[in-house]
Amino acid sequence: MTAPFETLDQFRAVLRALPQPDADAARAARSRDAALTKPPGALGRLEDLAAWYAGWRGDPRPRIVAPQVIVFAGNHGIAARGVSAFPAEVTAQMVANFRAGGAAINQLAGLHGAAVAVVALDLDRPTADFTRGPAMTEAEAVAALRAGWAAVDPGADLLVAGEMGIGNTTAAAAMAHALFGGEAGDWTGRGTGVDDRGLALKGRVVAEGVARHRAALADPLEVLRRLGGRELAAMAGATAAARAHRIPVILDGFINTAAVAVLEGAAPGALDHCIAGHVSAEHAHGALLARLGKAPLLSLGLRLGEGSGAALAIGVLRGALACHSGMATFAEAGVAGG
Amino acid sequence: MTAPFETLDQFRAVLRALPQPDADAARAARSRDAALTKPPGALGRLEDLAAWYAGWRGDPRPRIVAPQVIVFAGNHGIAARGVSAFPAEVTAQMVANFRAGGAAINQLAGLHGAAVAVVALDLDRPTADFTRGPAMTEAEAVAALRAGWAAVDPGADLLVAGEMGIGNTTAAAAMAHALFGGEAGDWTGRGTGVDDRGLALKGRVVAEGVARHRAALADPLEVLRRLGGRELAAMAGATAAARAHRIPVILDGFINTAAVAVLEGAAPGALDHCIAGHVSAEHAHGALLARLGKAPLLSLGLRLGEGSGAALAIGVLRGALACHSGMATFAEAGVAGG
Repeated sequence: MTAPFETLDQFRAVLRALPQPDADAARAARSRDAALTKPPGALGRLEDLAAWYAGWRGDPRPRIVAPQVIVFAGNHGIAARGVSAFPAEVTAQMVANFRAGGAAINQLAGLHGAAVAVVALDLDRPTADFTRGPAMTEAEAVAALRAGWAAVDPGADLLVAGEMGIGNTTAAAAMAHALFGGEAGDWTGRGTGVDDRGLALKGRVVAEGVARHRAALADPLEVLRRLGGRELAAMAGATAAARAHRIPVILDGFINTAAVAVLEGAAPGALDHCIAGHVSAEHAHGALLARLGKAPLLSLGLRLGEGSGAALAIGVLRGALACHSGMATFAEAGVAGG
Repeated sequence: MTAPFETLDQFRAVLRALPQPDADAARAARSRDAALTKPPGALGRLEDLAAWYAGWRGDPRPRIVAPQVIVFAGNHGIAARGVSAFPAEVTAQMVANFRAGGAAINQLAGLHGAAVAVVALDLDRPTADFTRGPAMTEAEAVAALRAGWAAVDPGADLLVAGEMGIGNTTAAAAMAHALFGGEAGDWTGRGTGVDDRGLALKGRVVAEGVARHRAALADPLEVLRRLGGRELAAMAGATAAARAHRIPVILDGFINTAAVAVLEGAAPGALDHCIAGHVSAEHAHGALLARLGKAPLLSLGLRLGEGSGAALAIGVLRGALACHSGMATFAEAGVAGG
């Protein structure tokens, strides 16, 4: 669906007018839960997940039947500084792999019947090196946000927005540092596996970038434009579109979380339709989720991106809804104690 | 398949002769993992799960196509002491609910294409109150172990053995206390939801039971017979049968874990084919898993039993194998960096 904005200011206005969950549906889901054949609270977080999902879908007894995974890919000028263990051409090679069905995300999406869309964003035009100037012009940032918005299937009932982009943990670390302060090293990790020297270099590059743009970074959308990248902006656009369509979102790893943190900064509550699928092995992901008040569903040491951790967590949410919507009530089953 | 033992001593001998994993298949799986289109280690624990499963199945590129969930139900003399928030007749009512497909375990098993078997063990003959004498005679304990063994489908490629039995967290706590020492209160929790007074009573009953049988409790199989119950013995028998058939097992909650801890006590290494599906909200489950050296896959505050947490974790293991067995290699995909 075409995005309803053509400037960053218009996007900001869209964020401030996002819909809220259906409180009646959430309340009806809680009532149903209390009648199911189990002790109260015995399904733990699954009970909260079911009520949360019911509220966003406006349906007290919902199922997930049309999940969508979108993998956004972009290239980064900052990669030329040597911040990744892999060369930049891997981005395009992995896009081909996603399209051929050979990557981890394809397998995990397939397991849950999720459609996979792959959106490669101007791979032959990397963003600018953010230590020298803004990563993107406003037109470039808006185009990426719009591409993300348009990629969301309005008929989907769950969204995972993943990413691929050599150098993008560095961009994400710079964004997190700009949004949440602290030291550059607090937000910088090993990404796909740089050594100690590479890690130190990343920290310096992140600090340089944030220092270079400091005067403009009070505006979260400027954080995205100046330090981010096309796939990060696209994930932000897709996550906002999901909210507009009342499609719940499972967040993936550090890069995805940094990208959408911009939305929360620009419009508090903008991530209420999102849950954290997992906490990754990337150094600062746990801290970033904590800043957003999101408790991860899984903690399995993943650090791949692509939406993989979020796609794995689809199984937990499907399990929650299978129980909630499929179980018998005490009255239906003739069990004492309801 | 008929169990190859008719006494506890014969069962002990079976445990000491259980098969080991196929080291060649596990090694081949590790080699395959290193060639897949992802940075080394980027799938975290999923990589270990795939190698572990490959070893037990003797197949370097396996899939799960025939998982089995068995729910064992039993009644407990100790329930007459008022240790549960629910009346004992709920055991039989829930068995009917399992058979009708209305319980949480039915929904979670269905999500993963797992067959559900329900085995009700002499519900009209509760075990004896273990504060007065052994919960089971040797004949009763062996019959329950054999029922568990026989319930396992030799053609299954994954097993979850769950339970239902009003009063059985008390039995499990007594077993854990007997096996691992400490104080009764270290192992006693709220089960389906007793209040503070009920919790204090459970602690006293557990302490009484362990004191009553102390002289015999150096033998883990006597721990099972004297303090356990039919469904706990059946889970132990099923878990041993799975090992004999090289079927990997996902462990469920506190009661399931206490039941199989007996096997590890009787024959160290007897649980090498088992992983911990989750850590439950039941007070002592985390400590019990730590004693067995098992790190849980999920931690979502479940405390239902039935095999529910383990069934939810099937999704994580299926995800691990989907990636491992389905992904393209660097060479196949033409991606640099392999």
